[in-house]
Amino acid sequence: MIETNKIGRYQFMAEPFHCDFTKHLLFGHLGNYMLNAADFHSHDRGFGMPYLNPIHKTWVLSRLAIEMTEYPTQYKKFFVDTWIESAVRYFTNRNFKIEGEDGTVYGYGKSVWAMIDTQTRQPQNILEIHGGKIIDYIETDKECPIEKSSRVKMSSDAQLIMTLDTHYNDVDVNGHINSVKYIEHVLDLFPLSQYENFLLKRFEIAYVAESHFGDKLNFYLEKSGEEEYCIRITKLEEKIENEVETCRCKVKFVKD
Amino acid sequence: MIETNKIGRYQFMAEPFHCDFTKHLLFGHLGNYMLNAADFHSHDRGFGMPYLNPIHKTWVLSRLAIEMTEYPTQYKKFFVDTWIESAVRYFTNRNFKIEGEDGTVYGYGKSVWAMIDTQTRQPQNILEIHGGKIIDYIETDKECPIEKSSRVKMSSDAQLIMTLDTHYNDVDVNGHINSVKYIEHVLDLFPLSQYENFLLKRFEIAYVAESHFGDKLNFYLEKSGEEEYCIRITKLEEKIENEVETCRCKVKFVKD
Repeated sequence: MIETNKIGRYQFMAEPFHCDFTKHLLFGHLGNYMLNAADFHSHDRGFGMPYLNPIHKTWVLSRLAIEMTEYPTQYKKFFVDTWIESAVRYFTNRNFKIEGEDGTVYGYGKSVWAMIDTQTRQPQNILEIHGGKIIDYIETDKECPIEKSSRVKMSSDAQLIMTLDTHYNDVDVNGHINSVKYIEHVLDLFPLSQYENFLLKRFEIAYVAESHFGDKLNFYLEKSGEEEYCIRITKLEEKIENEVETCRCKVKFVKD
Repeated sequence: MIETNKIGRYQFMAEPFHCDFTKHLLFGHLGNYMLNAADFHSHDRGFGMPYLNPIHKTWVLSRLAIEMTEYPTQYKKFFVDTWIESAVRYFTNRNFKIEGEDGTVYGYGKSVWAMIDTQTRQPQNILEIHGGKIIDYIETDKECPIEKSSRVKMSSDAQLIMTLDTHYNDVDVNGHINSVKYIEHVLDLFPLSQYENFLLKRFEIAYVAESHFGDKLNFYLEKSGEEEYCIRITKLEEKIENEVETCRCKVKFVKD
């Protein structure tokens, strides 16, 4: 049954083993729930991976920005609402709202997705799927009052602060490093005291190139404002000397 | 409402972002779902963390053995059944069965839990909670046809093969390294080809001592049979020279 509602609403729970030492939902798991909601939403409307994969196409997350006012505490149930704000030839903009059962608004998200051919890795025209049916699902009235991802600017002052080998658990169903794992690795750059004293207010990430199992990841960090940090992640493939940028992030903390 | 059924049944889904490159549920996430089921089961019967924590008590996972015949593929829904096989003064034995919607038996688990005082860290008499009510939930008829955890024997031949810093995302609500993270780190010791060619048949882990954020973890590995490996994890706390064992695991792969 194809869903006709434009907005998808999915319930999740801040599982205790997915919470941090402050007993709030870990940001990486929140990101994971949002990607799940996106996946369910597109699947329920005929644009999901189970439809796309057999025709050699897949969604690729290009940008993601999440801004939170507060985080669900352990055992709290919450909803992730998601909808498509716009769709052009090669990109769709998908929004998120994270809301408690009691109406508490925890935060919002904005994301950009491309569709690619899994064999040629070339961008695919989204409007050619089901005769452009995605247009029927565009929702422009629902508010998502956070800024879009911006271009994260970094200077040559950024310092290499961590080098990481990638492992089995980093790899997703497509054989690439899992989108959420980058987020977790970036948040692992900060000491526990950062999370004791500050709230992670906003996280944005732009995915530039895919990395694979066995690649070494380098993390470069630059302070760009008060409790605001920009991070560049590069990969070093085996037997290849050139460092290639895989993603770029901006993280903003505020006093808790 | 207190649940009177002895066996708890909880449904989960092999979420696509929790699957590996073979499109099967990652073992760490399976372990996480099982711990969730245990948590829900004890909570539904009045022995959960939300009841125990205010009276300064908590469950501590002491041993876990999981044996699988196959793993759910992405998007598959499955059930985790869990029940208490026995309870004595300081320990309960909790079993698990992992079953598909169509009745496919994916595997089983056996675990041992202690209850401790969160302030003194001393073992607590489980039979003193709710006047020994846990005895009413003991289920001895349901089958769990796998071997219990054994004492994992290791010689001095075990080789140090990885040293790891612990980070924010490794830490659980109690401030300790998350039980599932040890499992993931152990599975990350093996190359991708191991998972291409073999099925992870059995995993057992005994938790010996807690480790904390900032500890360095050393992983020692010894081959103990055909595609069978024993792993000892030790911690090195900051400014302390002595290496202390935190857990011991045994991993058995079979030809897929």
